[in-house]
Amino acid sequence: MQLKQIGVIHSPFFKATGTPVQPVCAGGTEGRIEIFDSYVAGLQDLDGFQRIWVLFWCHRARRPKLKVVPFRDTVAHGLFATRVPSRLNPIGLSALRLFEISGNSLHVGELDILDGTPVLDIKPYVSQYDSYPAQRCGWLDGDRTRREVVAADNRLELVSAHFPR
Amino acid sequence: MQLKQIGVIHSPFFKATGTPVQPVCAGGTEGRIEIFDSYVAGLQDLDGFQRIWVLFWCHRARRPKLKVVPFRDTVAHGLFATRVPSRLNPIGLSALRLFEISGNSLHVGELDILDGTPVLDIKPYVSQYDSYPAQRCGWLDGDRTRREVVAADNRLELVSAHFPR
Repeated sequence: MQLKQIGVIHSPFFKATGTPVQPVCAGGTEGRIEIFDSYVAGLQDLDGFQRIWVLFWCHRARRPKLKVVPFRDTVAHGLFATRVPSRLNPIGLSALRLFEISGNSLHVGELDILDGTPVLDIKPYVSQYDSYPAQRCGWLDGDRTRREVVAADNRLELVSAHFPR
Repeated sequence: MQLKQIGVIHSPFFKATGTPVQPVCAGGTEGRIEIFDSYVAGLQDLDGFQRIWVLFWCHRARRPKLKVVPFRDTVAHGLFATRVPSRLNPIGLSALRLFEISGNSLHVGELDILDGTPVLDIKPYVSQYDSYPAQRCGWLDGDRTRREVVAADNRLELVSAHFPR
């Protein structure tokens, strides 16, 4: 199971600290997804969709731990009960607003992804398939949840000479 | 970007033909996700969530084409404007109902995944992050869409001696 990069994220976020934890926390943040030229034919008819799923490789995330304190809590939960980027397979998933497609460039909004992130797949967001309002949401429904936290810190960021903080 | 399998799907669907195209089309279909023992600690607190994202490897999908006729239409669209399993990176995404977790076994409903499919990741479904009702949905909003189609056929299934149809 080998992945290939199909594109790259162009974003105003260059480090984990300050990057929105989710698109819903990203407000007016805009950016661009560049799809590599060989795959541009696959974009046909995507412009009819208001929102897209972007699957990406969390290239700046630390190695995973099975118990982790997520950004919006102060105690640890199982990795699979969180949306942290440090995962066994670090595949990120964001439902971004799609504004316009021009050639190989997707103008997107509500962007919560680091600049330079490798893109793995784009799928259309389909409300009939993906929208389940008012589901029971475990620890995120609790009183302790830090709902005021809208941006990440550097607790899960890879320390690397190539990526100075 | 190398993936590791973290578990496997146990499902009543053994071939593409007849497998629901999406969880919303899967009705009462139930099954089980087996998480490999070394990763079970990561399941802590997941049982509080009503629904989960399952990311899986579409191991039975044919090689991708950049233009594809999806199950619910009769004309081709760009690959990225469809949810077909034959993708450049064949990562499947399903929002399944979670009923119960017992040890390394997740009892799930609305299952639309083939038996034996490798699991890559589990994330909690969070309505605040993932639910966008009434989005504009391109060709799927059109008059031509075959809304009556709720199950796949074998047009994208890998032909293999290991997987007789």
